[in-house]
Amino acid sequence: MESAEALAARVRGSFESQGMLRTLRASLESVEPGRVVVRVPFDASLTQQDGFFHAGVTSTIADTAGGYAGYTMFAADASVLTVEFKINLVRPAIGQYLEAVGKVVKAGRTLTITTAEVFAQGQERTLVAVCQQTLIQVRAGQKA
Amino acid sequence: MESAEALAARVRGSFESQGMLRTLRASLESVEPGRVVVRVPFDASLTQQDGFFHAGVTSTIADTAGGYAGYTMFAADASVLTVEFKINLVRPAIGQYLEAVGKVVKAGRTLTITTAEVFAQGQERTLVAVCQQTLIQVRAGQKA
Amino acid sequence: MESAEALAARVRGSFESQGMLRTLRASLESVEPGRVVVRVPFDASLTQQDGFFHAGVTSTIADTAGGYAGYTMFAADASVLTVEFKINLVRPAIGQYLEAVGKVVKAGRTLTITTAEVFAQGQERTLVAVCQQTLIQVRAGQKA
Amino acid sequence: MESAEALAARVRGSFESQGMLRTLRASLESVEPGRVVVRVPFDASLTQQDGFFHAGVTSTIADTAGGYAGYTMFAADASVLTVEFKINLVRPAIGQYLEAVGKVVKAGRTLTITTAEVFAQGQERTLVAVCQQTLIQVRAGQKA
Repeated sequence: MESAEALAARVRGSFESQGMLRTLRASLESVEPGRVVVRVPFDASLTQQDGFFHAGVTSTIADTAGGYAGYTMFAADASVLTVEFKINLVRPAIGQYLEAVGKVVKAGRTLTITTAEVFAQGQERTLVAVCQQTLIQVRAGQKA
Repeated sequence: MESAEALAARVRGSFESQGMLRTLRASLESVEPGRVVVRVPFDASLTQQDGFFHAGVTSTIADTAGGYAGYTMFAADASVLTVEFKINLVRPAIGQYLEAVGKVVKAGRTLTITTAEVFAQGQERTLVAVCQQTLIQVRAGQKA
Repeated sequence: MESAEALAARVRGSFESQGMLRTLRASLESVEPGRVVVRVPFDASLTQQDGFFHAGVTSTIADTAGGYAGYTMFAADASVLTVEFKINLVRPAIGQYLEAVGKVVKAGRTLTITTAEVFAQGQERTLVAVCQQTLIQVRAGQKA
Repeated sequence: MESAEALAARVRGSFESQGMLRTLRASLESVEPGRVVVRVPFDASLTQQDGFFHAGVTSTIADTAGGYAGYTMFAADASVLTVEFKINLVRPAIGQYLEAVGKVVKAGRTLTITTAEVFAQGQERTLVAVCQQTLIQVRAGQKA
């Protein structure tokens, strides 16, 4: 059984190896078995035409939070790939930061299903997107 | 009837106002009524843990190509919002650049449906993702 | 303000006008503002190749529960159309009946977003599917 | 290498074992490697509140056409399960029959991705839905 520290270190190591997440200045806010929170602070480099967070940022952190939520349930030597996801953008993403909360719905030997909610933190915390995702666990030495 | 030049200028104007698309160094490769092509060159700032293009990049340009494909069919004073999209990541996104081809499936007064295919250009051009998207046309002075 | 009785009668009237729901022997188990439960008893006429509930049944009642959950929030003279939905089938649908619980995530003037969970009731109640859906409210005298 | 006759017989055998497809009076119109067509004639038992085909019928045959399109590419002793699908209902489904055309986008060892288009045949043939689907190939003796 993997300790909470080992789990957090495993997720953090993978997270920090992603150039795109550095570009977004994304941070891991929380890592628990089956639940991961990812945050991105507002920056003009992340906007769409109205100056709000771009849907691509919202989608990227929803995919990331869901993906790492699944990854927490995987074998320590396995890696995770997103098979597909679907996201509804339900309100404009305006605020100081975005926060995606990913949760495992069903963890399987091959496939894992997650959901993610993305919130914008302005004066209030508002739900801006909901996402449903399918992940595949790739064991060491195996091809997807 | 809007001229091809006016249409291209309208799309380009919106495209260039998006900070996120500059961050990705995304370019508009083609604009026709109902079909838009978006390209992003490889850069280490856009990678996932294996050094390939991040799914967030693939998703962002799929959403963008589909969104502008829909936008070409809209009234000249309308704006476009993504309601939702669903993307399958079918192969690793490895290559010199990614190219997303967005096409309108059904243009409606309120809602427009598109699909996008994303290709990676390496030694060959390979399909790396397929996307299906719902857009809403927001008229000037109207709320979504 | 519509009474609970008027709301339930409005939903039931629409539900009972659907030939397909009679074919499935679907029943409305619960109607509250923003939440609707639909049940279908097992029958050999509803199976796939292994004798379980067919994914088409699971999908139909997920769509129906989400759709009526949205409909509870609409103007009394409006009708509801499904724009799109996405469903993950997470376990085999085996049991005496299926039950879909639809909930509104975001109710809007034009578009409403819902989720639905589908459970199979055998010796235990197990989650067999999760669904995310977009609805459009069509006002009396308006075209979609 | 499986003959065209053996392939068609394998698909037909699975198709005919599904009680739900008999309930819909669905028929297999065409089976080729990577492409399957499924048809359902109009019947009052398949309607929604306006007397059109119910979205559940449209969804069921989209899922079925995509699923068997994938199945044509599988090992002869494998079975197919739908992991998930997403469908956009783009026009009212009115006509003498519905026809779903499923096509394989990417066939994989474990996962296969398909799209399906559903048409209504009235005085004209109109596109009423587009679907994107993920399938899993389950080998004989293997668990999903």
